[in-house]
This record gives sequence, structure tokens and C-alpha cells, in this order.
Amino acid sequence: MTDTAAALDTAVALDAADALGAHVGRFVESDEVISYLDGNSLGRPLKVTAEKMVSFIRSDWGSRLIRSWDEQWMELPLALGDRIGALTLGAAAGQTVVADSTTVMLYKLIRAAVAARPGRTEILLDDDNFPTDRFLVDGIARECGLSLRWIAVDKTAGVTADQVRASVSEKTALVLLSHVSYRSGYLADMPGITRIIHDAGALVLWDLCHSAGVIPTELDAWHVDIAVGCTYKYLNGGPGSPAYGYVASALQSELEQPIWGWMGASDVFGMTDAYVPATGMRRFISGTPPVVGMLAMRDMLDLIEEAGMPAIRAKSFALTDYAIALIEELLVPLGVTISTPIAHEFRGSHVTISHPSFRQVNEALWAQNIIPDFRNPDGIRLGLSPLSTTFAEVLIGIEAIRAALTR
Amino acid sequence: MTDTAAALDTAVALDAADALGAHVGRFVESDEVISYLDGNSLGRPLKVTAEKMVSFIRSDWGSRLIRSWDEQWMELPLALGDRIGALTLGAAAGQTVVADSTTVMLYKLIRAAVAARPGRTEILLDDDNFPTDRFLVDGIARECGLSLRWIAVDKTAGVTADQVRASVSEKTALVLLSHVSYRSGYLADMPGITRIIHDAGALVLWDLCHSAGVIPTELDAWHVDIAVGCTYKYLNGGPGSPAYGYVASALQSELEQPIWGWMGASDVFGMTDAYVPATGMRRFISGTPPVVGMLAMRDMLDLIEEAGMPAIRAKSFALTDYAIALIEELLVPLGVTISTPIAHEFRGSHVTISHPSFRQVNEALWAQNIIPDFRNPDGIRLGLSPLSTTFAEVLIGIEAIRAALTR
Repeated sequence: MTDTAAALDTAVALDAADALGAHVGRFVESDEVISYLDGNSLGRPLKVTAEKMVSFIRSDWGSRLIRSWDEQWMELPLALGDRIGALTLGAAAGQTVVADSTTVMLYKLIRAAVAARPGRTEILLDDDNFPTDRFLVDGIARECGLSLRWIAVDKTAGVTADQVRASVSEKTALVLLSHVSYRSGYLADMPGITRIIHDAGALVLWDLCHSAGVIPTELDAWHVDIAVGCTYKYLNGGPGSPAYGYVASALQSELEQPIWGWMGASDVFGMTDAYVPATGMRRFISGTPPVVGMLAMRDMLDLIEEAGMPAIRAKSFALTDYAIALIEELLVPLGVTISTPIAHEFRGSHVTISHPSFRQVNEALWAQNIIPDFRNPDGIRLGLSPLSTTFAEVLIGIEAIRAALTR
Repeated sequence: MTDTAAALDTAVALDAADALGAHVGRFVESDEVISYLDGNSLGRPLKVTAEKMVSFIRSDWGSRLIRSWDEQWMELPLALGDRIGALTLGAAAGQTVVADSTTVMLYKLIRAAVAARPGRTEILLDDDNFPTDRFLVDGIARECGLSLRWIAVDKTAGVTADQVRASVSEKTALVLLSHVSYRSGYLADMPGITRIIHDAGALVLWDLCHSAGVIPTELDAWHVDIAVGCTYKYLNGGPGSPAYGYVASALQSELEQPIWGWMGASDVFGMTDAYVPATGMRRFISGTPPVVGMLAMRDMLDLIEEAGMPAIRAKSFALTDYAIALIEELLVPLGVTISTPIAHEFRGSHVTISHPSFRQVNEALWAQNIIPDFRNPDGIRLGLSPLSTTFAEVLIGIEAIRAALTR
């Protein structure tokens, strides 16, 4: 038996023993993809989503028509938000809403947050935050007359509590940090860092894009102020599905977002003269809810409820442990470096590795229907989605990288 | 033969003779709705949309997976925009983009427009504009230190060229008007009013929500600066489908929208330090395009291309003429008033009528599966969608209103 065949036996055995393994068959099967390792960019659809979409088009939209707004769609942003909050965020009802793109939701909540801390002149963030986050605060700082303070982080890790403590001050209005670094996969200490920020009297906004649906949080217990997450990665909402925003109950009435539309007004159908924001989370809605884009994530939430976040997190560790062990064995000897933290407490659900030739390697892999993600300048990210990724896929992907590097 | 039976014969004959009548069967048939007269709130889905959605989930999303971004989705906002531009707007390619909710798109383009006219301190609009438009500029005026100037319009009509001429001045940065009044259905003189606004050196933003897909425009020929439209009404994109925005070529490089995200940056995947807006319409994109919500409108655009906008507009006149004649015969004697202009040149595609008991009447009609739209305080809107509404539906709806009023 060759090494490769033995390794495949091991992977297959791991899949067979996996408590969540049976769920893999519930996702749409591709007739071409051999290994999909990009669940952190776009989660796969569930089979049931296709059936439900047809039923939605024929019944909810095609037959109930405009009445569906009264019957279900008006409440959907809040009902879906509550469900995400309960299942994945540790958030009591009435604090989470689904709306807009992640970028627009971040813009609205950042603007609302800095306006709620008048006299404080700084937004604090790290210099390896996702481009959108960095771009947004640059624009907001200019329009609101604020300055930006940057924490320089180790690009193979992420922001630490000590770094935040050294930078937050009585000038800080808002701290904007990512829970999991999009680049390294580093998991920040959300409760510890949140305490430090609050000790300085500032607000915190956690960007949950790379942890939403895969890493359980306790937003209420950790006294998080604001959070924004993405639903097309591990929540499998489909390409460009809308964001969710969380605002702690105690803070909601203090925050006013700047994009005033009828759906966020106190009296939606009153057609009143002046805008009065709704109470509660509805005030963070601007336009008509993007209903069609909100449907698929419901099916994934059903599956998350069935599987449970603790089991999902355990499988995420098992997959990333397995990937890291294989990388150390097969790729590190070829000059590949690992950016992702080895310690569980700092690890998200993707593993990032680097090598000067990875741009070409990634192209070669895609051509073979093995799909990881390339990130400038030399990173390959393996996004491991606990409910749909198999151990065999991880092995196939890493073996293919080795083959490409040794060709 | 009773009057009612004779009237129904007439309606059925009109449907049989209607050149677009054959298309009605291409929409999803409801097993319950007898008359749907709310196409101006939510257009009906096409049957083909259900099939295509399944194919999208299984193939584009489920099998091509992340590769679909490169293969089609990255270009979708611009490709779809160009198609809307060519088929319905009189807009050459490269000037229309599909993104965000209508509210968010309006916010971004209003902010961009007023920033492009520094030194001018006023936004001019009419006081019967849709609440979102009025609310948005109220918020924007506060944040940007501008003032609002309101044109008081006749609530049973809309804004006239004379009114705009009397109010626009060297202080005006932007004029924000609706092409078709959401309330009365009044159609504004877009080319004439645009000239007056330009003579004063101001920019104009036309809100096309109630004309998009049903009333052809010539945005390029009329030298319109900016326009925003809605895709879930007569473009049948589904509940909450994204908006489109049009910015004239010559103006694009002057306008910078305030919500800076990676998808609007010059180098999307460069993960660069600073935000540099893309050239062309891509700069008006902020977050990840809402792909799932952009699919259904493609099917309606196919049908619009097949039918042609001139035939659609002719059918819109035929339907509204028919409705107005029936209302005058059957409802005006019962105290109902008509807000919609009688002259074709000022008429959109919905007919609005008023009566003190219409809130109750509308509720009674919905319970009978006859679905018009109620608008505060006493209006019923009959939204007639030329490709899906039959003459028989118009008759049934108006007969039902008469019956409710005489009970």
C-alpha cells in the first residue's frame, strides 16, 4: 500500500467516524468538483434549498403575492436575525437584524457608533483588517472629521489584548476588529478585548464575517456592543446574501444610523412627513428587505440547529488539526509556511499557507476541480466548513498542492 | 344579458384582441387570486424563473461554486445594468449598475451628487415625493449642512416644469424628483424639467421607481444626470430585489459615493492599503453583489425585449384608459374621486382613486382574493402591469369595489 493510499484510507475512516459526516450528503452534489475548500468564501447550497425556492416562487411570491409582506416578509429581517442570534451568537431576541450587504451594514453601524460618542475623535482598528473595513473607516473618518489609529499586527497572527490596551484611550470612540482574521485565520480574544475597550469608555464593533455560523460566540454575556456578520460563507445564504447586524439592547436607542428609509421608520406605512426611527432593531433597516436573498440561509440554520454549534466547532477543530498535520508533513518540507495559529484558542475555521508559487498553484488546482482560495500576494486559504467539508477533501486538496509544488 | 355579464364579455374580448395577451400565461398562475392589481408594488414571477432558480442553485452556485464569481457574477451588476439601460432607459452601456436596496442606492448617489456641487447649499424636491426620498434628504441635509427646499404639489397631480423653474436657483445643488408619483400616478415632464434644472447649473436625480420597466425613457438623449429605479415592481425581480442606478458617463468621474467597500475599489482583489474608486460605474458598488436577488429580473428583461417597450407602453395606456372609463361609470357616482391624470402625457401605469371607506373596502377585497393596494389615508391604487394584467382583472377589481361600496 502506498503512502497516499494509506493516507486516503485514514481520511475515509475519519469521515466514516465523524458524527456530522452524514450531513454532507444534504448539500448539492457537484458533478465536477473533487475537493471544495472555499467554504469561507462561498458556502455550498443545501439540496432542500432548491425545492424550497420553487415553493417560494410559486406560493409565497406567485400566489400570496403582496399579502406575503404582511404575512411573513415584514418580520423576516428580525425573525431571521433572532434565529441567527439564538443559534450562533449567544444573543437574546430583539438584537439582530438581517439587511443590506455587509459593507452597507458596517457603514451604518460604524456611523451610528461614532455619533454616539461625541467628543471622542478616534476610530481604532488593526492594519490587517479586511479591506472593506479599512476603506469604510477611511471614508467615514474623512466625512465625520475623525482620525484613525492603526494597530500594527503580525500578518501571520492577529490583534492581541495587549495591543488593544496599549492603543485604546479616552480619545477612542469606536474600536473595529475582526473576530477571525480573513488572512491568517487568527481568532481574537473577544471577551478579553471587549473588556479592555469598555474600560476606556469606547464602543466595540466586532466583524464576524469569518466566524459567523462556525465559531460560537456569547455576545450578550461578553457585553459586546455591536457586531456585523456575513451570511454567504458558513451560513450558506448564497452569493451576496445580506449581512446581519447585532446591537446590544441597552445601546439601541442611543444609535441612529444615517440611511433613513421608510422601512426603518416608526410608522412604515404612515407616509408621514418626518422620519422618526423605529424602536428596537427595526431602526437599523433602511430599504425594502432583500427577501429572495434571505431564503437559503434558513435551510442552513435548520441544519445548524440540528447539529448544534458545539459539534460544529469540534468538527472545525478536527478538520483544521488534520489539515495542519498534513501540511506539516507534506508541504512544510517543500518551503510552505503556515500562517494559521496552532493553538486551538486562537484558531478560526480556515487554514492559510504561503508559498511564492501559490498563485500558479491555485490556478492549476482550479483547473483540476480542486477549489481552495487564493489571497494576494502568496496565500492559499483552505476554508473548512464543518457541515459540508470531508476529511477526504482536505487530503485531496493538500496532496494536489504537494503534487503541483513538486512538478 | 345583465350589464355585468356584458361588461365581462367586453373585457374578455379586449384580452382576446390584445397583442400582449399571450404573455399572461407565462407568469406563475395563482390558484387563489382572482384579480391582481398590485403590480406596482410587487410584480408577479414568471414560470421560467422557478426552473432557472433550480438550475442556478444546482449548477452556478452548487457546482461552479466560487468560480462563478470570475465566470459571471463579478460582471453581473454591470451586465444587468446595461441590459436595463438598453431595453428600458435609453441608456448606452456603462452607465447603469444593479446594487443595494433602492434606499441605499439613492443615499449613495444623493451624497455623491451634492458633494460634486460644492458651494451650492440646497436640495430641491417636492413635498409629495415618496417617504424614503424625503426622509433620506432630511438626514443628508443634516449631516452635510445643506438645506431643503420643498415644492408644494397638488396631491392629485405632481410636480410641473413651472414649479421647478420658480424654485431652482444658483443655490441648488441637486433636484430630486419622482418620474411617476407613487400616490397619484402623475408622470412628470422629465426632458423639460431636466433642461430647466441644467439651466440653473444644478444636477437632477430622477427616481424611476414607479416607471421602471413600464414607461420608456431616453435618459441619454434627455441629458439626465442620475436616476435610480426599483426592480421588484414592473421588472418582476421578486420581493426586495436590488435597485439600479444610472449615472451619465460624463459625470461618473466627478461623483464619489461615501460607502467605500472592496467591490467598488479600483483593484478589487488587490487588498490594498488605500481605497481608490474604480473607474466607471463599478465605483458605485459597495459590498458583494446580491446575486440571488438579481436573477429573476433577467427573465422579465427577456420578456420585455420580446414584447418591446412601445407595445408595453401602449398596453399600459389601454389598461389605464379602460380602468378610468369603468371608474367613471361605476365608482364616481358612488363618491369615488380619481387622482390619476386623464391626459396620457401625464399618466403612469397605476390609477389611484379615493374614498373615505377605502381602508375597509381594501380589506374586504383582499379577503375575496382581489388584490389592489391601499395607501394612507383613503387611496386605492390599481397597479396595472402590461405584461401580466388582464382587462378582465381590471373589471373584476372595479366591480368588487362597487359591490363593497354599495353593500
